[in-house]
Amino acid sequence: MGRTLIHGAVIVTALEDASIPNGYLIIEGNRLAEVGSGEYTGTTEGFDRVIDAKGKLAMPGLINTHGHAAMTLLRGYADDLPLQTWLEDRCWPIEAKMTDEDIYWGTQLAILEMLKGGTTTFTDMYFSMDRVAEAAKESGIRACLSRGIIGFPPDGEKKLAEAISFSKEYHGQANNRITVTFGPHAPYTCPPDFMKKVVSASEELNLPIQIHLSETAREVAECVEQHGVSPIKLMEELGVFNRPTLAAHCVHLSDEDIEIMAKYDVRVAHNPDSNLKLGSGIAPVLKMLEKGLTVGLGTDGAASNNNLDMFEEMRMAAMLHKGVNQDAIAVSAFKALEMATTDGARALFLEESLGTLQAGALADVLLLDIEQPHFYPRHNMIAHLVYSAGSRDVTHVFVDGELVVEDRKVLTMDEQQIYAEVQRVCERLYAE
Amino acid sequence: MGRTLIHGAVIVTALEDASIPNGYLIIEGNRLAEVGSGEYTGTTEGFDRVIDAKGKLAMPGLINTHGHAAMTLLRGYADDLPLQTWLEDRCWPIEAKMTDEDIYWGTQLAILEMLKGGTTTFTDMYFSMDRVAEAAKESGIRACLSRGIIGFPPDGEKKLAEAISFSKEYHGQANNRITVTFGPHAPYTCPPDFMKKVVSASEELNLPIQIHLSETAREVAECVEQHGVSPIKLMEELGVFNRPTLAAHCVHLSDEDIEIMAKYDVRVAHNPDSNLKLGSGIAPVLKMLEKGLTVGLGTDGAASNNNLDMFEEMRMAAMLHKGVNQDAIAVSAFKALEMATTDGARALFLEESLGTLQAGALADVLLLDIEQPHFYPRHNMIAHLVYSAGSRDVTHVFVDGELVVEDRKVLTMDEQQIYAEVQRVCERLYAE
Ligand SMILES: [Zn+2]
Ligand SMILES: [Zn+2]
Repeated sequence: MGRTLIHGAVIVTALEDASIPNGYLIIEGNRLAEVGSGEYTGTTEGFDRVIDAKGKLAMPGLINTHGHAAMTLLRGYADDLPLQTWLEDRCWPIEAKMTDEDIYWGTQLAILEMLKGGTTTFTDMYFSMDRVAEAAKESGIRACLSRGIIGFPPDGEKKLAEAISFSKEYHGQANNRITVTFGPHAPYTCPPDFMKKVVSASEELNLPIQIHLSETAREVAECVEQHGVSPIKLMEELGVFNRPTLAAHCVHLSDEDIEIMAKYDVRVAHNPDSNLKLGSGIAPVLKMLEKGLTVGLGTDGAASNNNLDMFEEMRMAAMLHKGVNQDAIAVSAFKALEMATTDGARALFLEESLGTLQAGALADVLLLDIEQPHFYPRHNMIAHLVYSAGSRDVTHVFVDGELVVEDRKVLTMDEQQIYAEVQRVCERLYAE
Repeated sequence: MGRTLIHGAVIVTALEDASIPNGYLIIEGNRLAEVGSGEYTGTTEGFDRVIDAKGKLAMPGLINTHGHAAMTLLRGYADDLPLQTWLEDRCWPIEAKMTDEDIYWGTQLAILEMLKGGTTTFTDMYFSMDRVAEAAKESGIRACLSRGIIGFPPDGEKKLAEAISFSKEYHGQANNRITVTFGPHAPYTCPPDFMKKVVSASEELNLPIQIHLSETAREVAECVEQHGVSPIKLMEELGVFNRPTLAAHCVHLSDEDIEIMAKYDVRVAHNPDSNLKLGSGIAPVLKMLEKGLTVGLGTDGAASNNNLDMFEEMRMAAMLHKGVNQDAIAVSAFKALEMATTDGARALFLEESLGTLQAGALADVLLLDIEQPHFYPRHNMIAHLVYSAGSRDVTHVFVDGELVVEDRKVLTMDEQQIYAEVQRVCERLYAE
């Protein structure tokens, strides 16, 4: 760890809609000690690492607020299918065969892709979570993890118990890089009485909840049919929103739903690519923002995206809502950048220390190669980041003060081994 | 030129929804002589270049069917603004200052970006077109060019005359890499009588027409108000569609409009990112496809996108219409690939020789580095290309049998000089 100086970079702090044309960063331990404008004129002595970042842009690491990492194993296996066929005939039979080791390698593949693409924090809801946590620890990435809980008998109670013991063992691990939340999958997979137990557990352990809410029109209609209220209203009634809650998707919301979410400060993981690809629809993000909701961005799993590229989500968030609302000033470039950084940190209840480049913040930092045509001319680097840039522009990644990607190579992982293991796992999973 | 052997690659021909897991290509002169499956077992003698493409994927070069290349000079200058402010207060004043040399450098920047990103054919409608044609010739890219014609007096006639002389001088130049079409800008900038003159010229010179049609709701409403019919109907009445026509945008169409377009086999340049970003809306692509229309993809200019990345357009086309129609099987990955290759060739009336990898086709070929996490596991390379890949995965580009990009370096252009010239040009253009 130690002390690192990065100088000569264009700096985007994500604190304001502007960039520093030439500045420097000093990392001490796992935090930023200084973010400065202009030429660095101090001594370079006493640094363990000095990076001349001329031709590079420094920005906060991107925060992926929703996903299922090991579903990389399903990437490209089940595309262009109706949602139910996709889920029931394709995803579930393969997932039923997955071992702890399979999930470990699928998660490694996901982390490899995310780190290379500038994601420094990811969110996961899946199973075999201790193996997921191990993969996160080893790789150096920051992770917000939930044991996904399907609450039907007979396994519901067992899964909740697993979630509790997972949270006790892993929350705060790896120098606090790992945080844990409770992950009841959705209202339609967790019956009301069971949901209340999850709420109690989350209260006892003082941890937030993440849950899928109102992803499809069908799900909302069935909830109304069964419970007489929308999924959002149902969650309010069950006390879920008395806990800090991160709600994924939120595609089909009434104005009343949005009012409820605003009242409880429910935070949203907006997954525009996944919602489009599965034909779920387009979340009413403009309305959410108008009501002051915090909206982060997520990729969802690689079975419905199919990559884990936060630059694409950022770009999509800035483009899609302009088009759907026929409003060229909807979701500005800076707002999209905030959704991927500062608002993403808020969505995960980590806003105190994450999502910006400023003295005192955790040192999750990206460097991008901006000596490329799509970064010229140099009118507006925020616009370039959101509308022009791509994940492959990332050359260096620091997480928690540690250099984990250098010149596009992930220092903490064995890329060739991961590919080989993933292919081996898939040969077994997809064998008849 | 000569003979090139590429072996050991995954090959996507774009002729079918499948890939060859291990195959080879032989390029002779400017055409593909052979596309083979399996290990290459012939002699490597007599080849001028042999590329071992293990870990790479070969596919046809991408075809950008709509744009204004030199508008790279405006990239990031005018974002998140209402359309009229964007156009009238930002774009036009800067464009009014542009010299031939400015356009030459702006076009070079565009071509540099496009070649690096796997675009082998681009479409342009702008001014100073002889300088655009020179930039295309020198760089080795394929180009379909139009002198953009605003038909109002007093300059309309002069611009039409320029378009005629440009077409006589450049159509078929550079071993046929350059083709020319007539480019009346739009119904609202070319009055009916003038439009008829453009149609006559296109008939005399036997060249297609490209035109912006029905991009915004406002434009359609104003056309109905002024002429009593939609822009599409008006073009039919003026005889435009008796000529081979490429219509850009087509966002706001009635069912009758689509019927008319189908009747005349009008070809469409769909620009999903630009239409979103400017808040124009979302083109009814599903309906167009149902009626058998040919739909290619375009980036439009970098002032409204802001990059020239055909992988993003391909991905957007496959994602967006699923979401808007809440239909997960709308626009399959393979259809999106066709839109960027074979259908793009049809859109430009170049389908006889372009858009596929097969013996006899023009040798416009990309190699992509697929030893990256987002290409694993290897379930479906077509899905990976459309849903996971990005323009920075492209390592090698052949156009017309010539290697123009090698290991991500454009061999025919001076990258550093282009950046320096573009910055110099912009300092003058944006000086008060
Ligand atoms: Zn999910
Ligand atoms: Zn245009």
